[in-house]
Amino acid sequence: MKVLVIGDIVARPGRTAVLERIEDLRERYKADLIIANVENLAGGYSITPPLVEELLAVGVDVMTSGNHIFDKREAIAYINQQPKLLRPANYPPGTPGNGMWVGQVNGVGVAVINLIGRVFMGPADDPFRAADALLRELDPSVRVRLVDFHAEATSEKCALGWYLDGRVSAIFGTHTHVQTADERILPQGTAYITDIGMTGSHAGVIGMDRDDVIARFLTVTHRRLESAKGDVRICGIALDIDEQTGRARGISRFAIKHES
Amino acid sequence: MKVLVIGDIVARPGRTAVLERIEDLRERYKADLIIANVENLAGGYSITPPLVEELLAVGVDVMTSGNHIFDKREAIAYINQQPKLLRPANYPPGTPGNGMWVGQVNGVGVAVINLIGRVFMGPADDPFRAADALLRELDPSVRVRLVDFHAEATSEKCALGWYLDGRVSAIFGTHTHVQTADERILPQGTAYITDIGMTGSHAGVIGMDRDDVIARFLTVTHRRLESAKGDVRICGIALDIDEQTGRARGISRFAIKHES
Amino acid sequence: MKVLVIGDIVARPGRTAVLERIEDLRERYKADLIIANVENLAGGYSITPPLVEELLAVGVDVMTSGNHIFDKREAIAYINQQPKLLRPANYPPGTPGNGMWVGQVNGVGVAVINLIGRVFMGPADDPFRAADALLRELDPSVRVRLVDFHAEATSEKCALGWYLDGRVSAIFGTHTHVQTADERILPQGTAYITDIGMTGSHAGVIGMDRDDVIARFLTVTHRRLESAKGDVRICGIALDIDEQTGRARGISRFAIKHES
Amino acid sequence: MKVLVIGDIVARPGRTAVLERIEDLRERYKADLIIANVENLAGGYSITPPLVEELLAVGVDVMTSGNHIFDKREAIAYINQQPKLLRPANYPPGTPGNGMWVGQVNGVGVAVINLIGRVFMGPADDPFRAADALLRELDPSVRVRLVDFHAEATSEKCALGWYLDGRVSAIFGTHTHVQTADERILPQGTAYITDIGMTGSHAGVIGMDRDDVIARFLTVTHRRLESAKGDVRICGIALDIDEQTGRARGISRFAIKHES
Ligand SMILES: [Fe+2]
Ligand SMILES: [Fe+2]
Ligand SMILES: [Fe+2]
Ligand SMILES: [Fe+2]
Ligand SMILES: [Fe+2]
Ligand SMILES: [Fe+2]
Ligand SMILES: [Fe+2]
Ligand SMILES: [Fe+2]
Repeated sequence: MKVLVIGDIVARPGRTAVLERIEDLRERYKADLIIANVENLAGGYSITPPLVEELLAVGVDVMTSGNHIFDKREAIAYINQQPKLLRPANYPPGTPGNGMWVGQVNGVGVAVINLIGRVFMGPADDPFRAADALLRELDPSVRVRLVDFHAEATSEKCALGWYLDGRVSAIFGTHTHVQTADERILPQGTAYITDIGMTGSHAGVIGMDRDDVIARFLTVTHRRLESAKGDVRICGIALDIDEQTGRARGISRFAIKHES
Repeated sequence: MKVLVIGDIVARPGRTAVLERIEDLRERYKADLIIANVENLAGGYSITPPLVEELLAVGVDVMTSGNHIFDKREAIAYINQQPKLLRPANYPPGTPGNGMWVGQVNGVGVAVINLIGRVFMGPADDPFRAADALLRELDPSVRVRLVDFHAEATSEKCALGWYLDGRVSAIFGTHTHVQTADERILPQGTAYITDIGMTGSHAGVIGMDRDDVIARFLTVTHRRLESAKGDVRICGIALDIDEQTGRARGISRFAIKHES
Repeated sequence: MKVLVIGDIVARPGRTAVLERIEDLRERYKADLIIANVENLAGGYSITPPLVEELLAVGVDVMTSGNHIFDKREAIAYINQQPKLLRPANYPPGTPGNGMWVGQVNGVGVAVINLIGRVFMGPADDPFRAADALLRELDPSVRVRLVDFHAEATSEKCALGWYLDGRVSAIFGTHTHVQTADERILPQGTAYITDIGMTGSHAGVIGMDRDDVIARFLTVTHRRLESAKGDVRICGIALDIDEQTGRARGISRFAIKHES
Repeated sequence: MKVLVIGDIVARPGRTAVLERIEDLRERYKADLIIANVENLAGGYSITPPLVEELLAVGVDVMTSGNHIFDKREAIAYINQQPKLLRPANYPPGTPGNGMWVGQVNGVGVAVINLIGRVFMGPADDPFRAADALLRELDPSVRVRLVDFHAEATSEKCALGWYLDGRVSAIFGTHTHVQTADERILPQGTAYITDIGMTGSHAGVIGMDRDDVIARFLTVTHRRLESAKGDVRICGIALDIDEQTGRARGISRFAIKHES
């Protein structure tokens, strides 16, 4: 199974690029399944239902998210009625929405899991134990298992990678918005990358206007933080998974420049 | 001028690889200048004078560091007598050692600057203003200017990159130990990459034994943290700098597998 | 000289209490000078000019602040024209407003200094060195010197207390909104207390509605944070300073219940 | 039931004071039960078995702890055989030792619970849900319930206080080493105080040598951190609990100067 994973889509530049290029990408990678992280979809913060539905309409199959997913109130109500939109599974019990999606792709069972880290981030339940619990509850026949670990610290991401090696098909990081160059297949067959990067304008700082971000580092009075424009790139990974064993056969990064 | 920059050398595996491969690397990249980050040189923490001198002996020209540089007491005394070993320039006044090295390479003035970030790290002086001050005090005839920004957060690293665009030849990140895939030359001629990665064993978690690191995430009782062994890689970048203008002509990443 | 210092005034309950009781307090403590921390004056966040002027009108002499002072845009413009409203002195150069007020009280020179901590808080310049610099620039004839150290960690607050012992008349902490019971006069004559507490409703959590705060600890979806109502108390300290030497003769805490 | 709670005992000065004064204290407060926080018992870090047994021998009934409890290896083995020594209950499953002690005091069922906070501290399980779970599993006939919440942030401590109001007899904070002046009985009968303070030398900074602590704030090279000496005080609270209802009748602070 070929899986395409698109990194944090930030604001209009990211959305437009995905909408305009998704067909190209699907063909280029012969994707059977397309996953996208959407925590920054709406102006950089959270989602709106129409923006999620626009992505579903063009063929994004499952959406993952992270710390910004509930920044907009409308996301809270909507997520309960949209099983294809995940939030971190290790948020506290009672959090709206789900942290795992299980479905069929061309007749093959697939699970997509979303977890969030705790180092340099807000409190959450232990992602290691949360992963254990999700994998325990998962029907063993579901061999293709894909994990978006939304986290800051390289140590936590890499440690969870090793911890899940041989138990999932792939674990890929999101949240830092900068793609890392460490993609590989771990010894027990799990594809791993610390961060798949960000989809949006790379003319700024992690998707936001660079003058705004610089001003926030230089002063204590600057508040505005607009999304950046220009130099739009779609970042992500393409995975090739053995459907029988669930082991990864390949992982490759992409950072495709998009000119509209 | 061709510059080779080697990312955080971690413990014996990293050191051995550098010692055994530095001649290859110098030739492959026709390096006029070799810089290495050594904050993790001695067992993962700080340096010892003999280990630094071993690197100098094989041709490392300037060494940068970061938050671990003073973990060993002997580093504190030694750094004052070794101008080729830097510590972050934005550490408080009175900190032993220097944060900038200025010298001649093939008759061309070169400055190497070491800065440390503040987001998700211990307190330090403002790296943006520290950079301004260092560049102000620098003789304008020194056009080749190379900055190691030892920092955690992608936003802080990327923001300082833009802030220094056109004022330095290159700014490269260290500290996360994971190489990023975002190397580029910014519009005003500054080469930039968020992190150049780690030199040492990639069989662990950021250079340390993976079972130890996992145990530290799973428990509150695990203390031991040995360096990892196996799958040794030398990570870094090769820069090509126009000596007249100080602008970067090229930046390329490497992650060279080393088998001894 | 008798000095009254009123801890972080939070929202309407805090303001109303101060307005209604300031005359009582002034008489009770024979106050020659009244200082109040106003970082939470307007709904819990920052100030508005009319609210500051209301306090000036009833006799608050100098106002200090902290991390919330610039939460409202109007504070940024206003602070430059209101020398009696301070912001942390160790904010970066160029920050609007001042971190020290120097004036005469009954013919005696007085300095009020505002500093902010760095442990568990946003980046700022070193408060220890900032204090050194301010004291160096201060006319030595100004013997009465009062420092509001707005900080989170007890270690940082207590350390600055010892660091300034004998150099200022008093250093008192703000920011945690909980009054500490450790007021004392240090050996060299400096009055010290880790936190003077909060002025506002004590029916909540640090001045905010308790159900809102609890919901923010239990969930990741709760956003609203209203100020609390009921059980209003005015917290602060009364200082007695020897005007000749600048040494403290006395420090006493108060937490006065206010029923309107 | 009269309960005496002694705040974080730090190093030899704190231990000596407790050993020499415990009889006085027991009599003064007619204590039926004595609890002490011992996370800093041995040189400021963790415990040793003989030091714990020394406290048991003089009549400390139950010991709570916090983030430093496992700093010494010997604590890890010992805690499993010493049910009177608690560690935070919301440490991960599998952590040695227990987070709750249940026993009889003069024929009355008593529970002592130890929890740790998450704000500005290392990751842990949610203390709010952990408290819920412990109280659910507790025999309802155990009415006297005492909670040591070892936490940094006033907001988290105060929020858990309100959350448990009416469900426990008392919740008292530890960890900041500075006693707060906000002791009170909440409306549903739970005694509350944000921090009961530290037992040891108050001539330093939170029990450690003040020159060492100041040096660590001023420099990046200072490592040594000895415990302080002199101005020894025993800090804590005395509780009066109605044994029938489990409601608190009284809470009073003490900070007793000890001269040996
Ligand atoms: Fe994101
Ligand atoms: Fe994120
Ligand atoms: Fe490093
Ligand atoms: Fe580092
Ligand atoms: Fe405040
Ligand atoms: Fe504050
Ligand atoms: Fe403690
Ligand atoms: Fe503690």
